[in-house]
Amino acid sequence: MLNWFDNQTSREVTLKRAKQTSAETCPVARALEIIGDRWSLLIVRDAFDGIRRFNEFQRDLGLSKSVLASRLQELVGNGVLQIVQAEDGSAYQEYELTGKGQGLFHVIVGLRQWGEGFLFSRNEARSVMLERKSGKPVGPLALRTRAGRSLTPDDVVIKKVTKTA
Amino acid sequence: MLNWFDNQTSREVTLKRAKQTSAETCPVARALEIIGDRWSLLIVRDAFDGIRRFNEFQRDLGLSKSVLASRLQELVGNGVLQIVQAEDGSAYQEYELTGKGQGLFHVIVGLRQWGEGFLFSRNEARSVMLERKSGKPVGPLALRTRAGRSLTPDDVVIKKVTKTA
Repeated sequence: MLNWFDNQTSREVTLKRAKQTSAETCPVARALEIIGDRWSLLIVRDAFDGIRRFNEFQRDLGLSKSVLASRLQELVGNGVLQIVQAEDGSAYQEYELTGKGQGLFHVIVGLRQWGEGFLFSRNEARSVMLERKSGKPVGPLALRTRAGRSLTPDDVVIKKVTKTA
Repeated sequence: MLNWFDNQTSREVTLKRAKQTSAETCPVARALEIIGDRWSLLIVRDAFDGIRRFNEFQRDLGLSKSVLASRLQELVGNGVLQIVQAEDGSAYQEYELTGKGQGLFHVIVGLRQWGEGFLFSRNEARSVMLERKSGKPVGPLALRTRAGRSLTPDDVVIKKVTKTA
């Protein structure tokens, strides 16, 4: 049984974190305060791939129990994962993505497509993301205007917050 | 002058890194080997926003010179940034995104849109990404089939590499 922190502790963490405010006005920076860590993003990737239990995460990632426990607690505390009872009716706890966690889909896909595009040689073996129904590879992520025109980095500009004293 | 490592060292780092191979067959994991660090991703974000010089990065990020120097060296070594002569003709070195670095656009936008969607209260001040030409906010990132149908996390599956012994 790997419920080293129980539901009550988890709820306390959630409440405590929810009260914290961040001075960051950049959404990228604020996102990285929560998932700006390699293990956290790999845990989220695993959760998208259907991994649900502590020992499955540990086997897949090969990290220490204490680091995994700490990262899972943070992800639950920040509302990215939630603890649920095991799907098979056993007494195990399982972790699943919340709606907020599911919102990281494009971040994970973006990392995957960057890796595919720049970090593998042509014939090197790699995992592939397929459309479930057709079995065909997915298309590339795209950023568009609301009217549907494709946008490159040169087409956009960041409007920063004007600090008021 | 902040050229604490010179171009030759930078080239050596590049060559050394290029020879390294990774056992990771998951493109997400391989991507995170290179940019799975909060500072690295914030440096890349700053580079997209037009920051080019060591002291500009340092002022914007508020991190120590040694950590910044180390992260910049890694990003140059991994081919994400390149060192160029200053645009104004001065003797300063500047950092700019390579094509590989520009490829991280969707990762940064994904982090931004997740932050916007889940980490700010309704009226909280935040920076905004606008289309340069129209000044209008950009649309949401989207993953589609090659035929153009929008894909959610439930619509995709990862085909892993079968290990051959």
